[in-house]
Amino acid sequence: MAYIDRIRAIRNFDAAAYRPFRVGGRQVGLIHAEVAGLLEPYRSVLVPGAAGFDLAPGLTGPGDRSAAMADVLADMKGRGLIKGWRDEAYAVRERWGTPVLMEMERAAVPLFGVEGYGVHVNGFVRDGDEIRMWIGRRSLTKPTGPGKLDQVVAGGQPAGIGVTDNLIKECGEEAAIPEHLARRAHPVGAITYCTHRAEGLRRDVLFNFDLELPRDFTPTNTDGEVAEFMLWPMDKVMSVVRETDEFKFNCGVIVIDFLLRRGFIGPDDPDYLDLLQGMHRRREAPPEP
Amino acid sequence: MAYIDRIRAIRNFDAAAYRPFRVGGRQVGLIHAEVAGLLEPYRSVLVPGAAGFDLAPGLTGPGDRSAAMADVLADMKGRGLIKGWRDEAYAVRERWGTPVLMEMERAAVPLFGVEGYGVHVNGFVRDGDEIRMWIGRRSLTKPTGPGKLDQVVAGGQPAGIGVTDNLIKECGEEAAIPEHLARRAHPVGAITYCTHRAEGLRRDVLFNFDLELPRDFTPTNTDGEVAEFMLWPMDKVMSVVRETDEFKFNCGVIVIDFLLRRGFIGPDDPDYLDLLQGMHRRREAPPEP
Repeated sequence: MAYIDRIRAIRNFDAAAYRPFRVGGRQVGLIHAEVAGLLEPYRSVLVPGAAGFDLAPGLTGPGDRSAAMADVLADMKGRGLIKGWRDEAYAVRERWGTPVLMEMERAAVPLFGVEGYGVHVNGFVRDGDEIRMWIGRRSLTKPTGPGKLDQVVAGGQPAGIGVTDNLIKECGEEAAIPEHLARRAHPVGAITYCTHRAEGLRRDVLFNFDLELPRDFTPTNTDGEVAEFMLWPMDKVMSVVRETDEFKFNCGVIVIDFLLRRGFIGPDDPDYLDLLQGMHRRREAPPEP
Repeated sequence: MAYIDRIRAIRNFDAAAYRPFRVGGRQVGLIHAEVAGLLEPYRSVLVPGAAGFDLAPGLTGPGDRSAAMADVLADMKGRGLIKGWRDEAYAVRERWGTPVLMEMERAAVPLFGVEGYGVHVNGFVRDGDEIRMWIGRRSLTKPTGPGKLDQVVAGGQPAGIGVTDNLIKECGEEAAIPEHLARRAHPVGAITYCTHRAEGLRRDVLFNFDLELPRDFTPTNTDGEVAEFMLWPMDKVMSVVRETDEFKFNCGVIVIDFLLRRGFIGPDDPDYLDLLQGMHRRREAPPEP
């Protein structure tokens, strides 16, 4: 196995199986044929057409749209069609940096192929020239990736809170990192991907941060989402990412981004450019002229 | 003006104007219609067909291919068709990490739309929490970008030398950085682009390195390629990249990559994802399934 296998796992997408989902005339998602078959009861809200689904055009504001969508999702939940309900609202946009068109329950986001946002923090300590990385093991009760390895802090980006504020909140909840330490985290980029998973289509944007932690700080979980934290030398982090799928599918890619930025993987790796390009390219993008 | 304008400058490509160029059956380049019109005298070596140009299939090894191509290029130079002759051999590959199919003169690489490789070094110093960056101004005698701003060290990647050895050589020639300092540079990624310029089609891969320099070190040019070096606070570097085109078209993008990795640009910038994706995506890539 090789690092590039982690990239392949975030690029498992067959465009032919999906139809666009639009809100206010803007494409916000991609609906799989199997999901489309479940939406017949909601055709007054999710209006099918030759070119995909439109949220009923009569719903013109974020409030009305969110309410109508919430009714649909509550019914789908009652039919057992939505697993791992989070009771957490995600903002629905055409793309990052554009206006929020509505909100919807996080667990339904992959079913509608809506872009999902998250924050991931690479927490590390320096020991002379050596770097060691804090790794979390996800609780067995997590709806996605139970028991898998993860960053020290990672969380979804709910509606109505800024990225930095969310980062600070997650640092506190997941690892008991106090605010004055969390504020040392700095943005280092983002990975973007579109891949089919058990929960649906993950069209994710994960904002990455690096956070150098003091050597005398030990993370402690406070919200039950992390089973244990481990401080690993980079050699071990690298071999586990490269040789196993112990890391949650997207968390391993976040580590690879760290390895690329900090010189642990260099141009002598024949996959160097495929690793760099593969964590940024969007397979669902229309071909460019 | 905005950072995203620098990205647009590396994405000026009209696929319809180009035809593939193959060596040994592998596509290695893209030839513009205007260049194609100049190649008629060389049709025994550069064989035109319905699907582009093939280097004569009878040339089966890198040595024979390079010699035949050198004859063509010498003749084109004599006709005044190749500007800025470097007398420097570039390796021609299908893509990074695959075998070298032949070598050719660097100045002709953009005419044939062959992938060009280079190394760029972000040289910076720390002063407490502040970072300042060494900026070079290119000599007025450079064939590309005369007088433009540049990294402290940047150079093409000639055939027959490894990336790290080339980096050390360029550090010595361009900025008199001694080998023990140059070896502190570490790879941080690469930018890849495909864009039309005066010299032809730049399909470049630039390997980027960060090098923290001691505060008491001052770079000195030894090869006549740099007119002056300046140590700028990041605020100034950022405003010059953002508001002007004083940086050479690709060097400004290398700076933006530095700004993204080190938190000077964050997710609150509405162009954040376009900046990240735009310096990695290849516009000439075939649409993916």
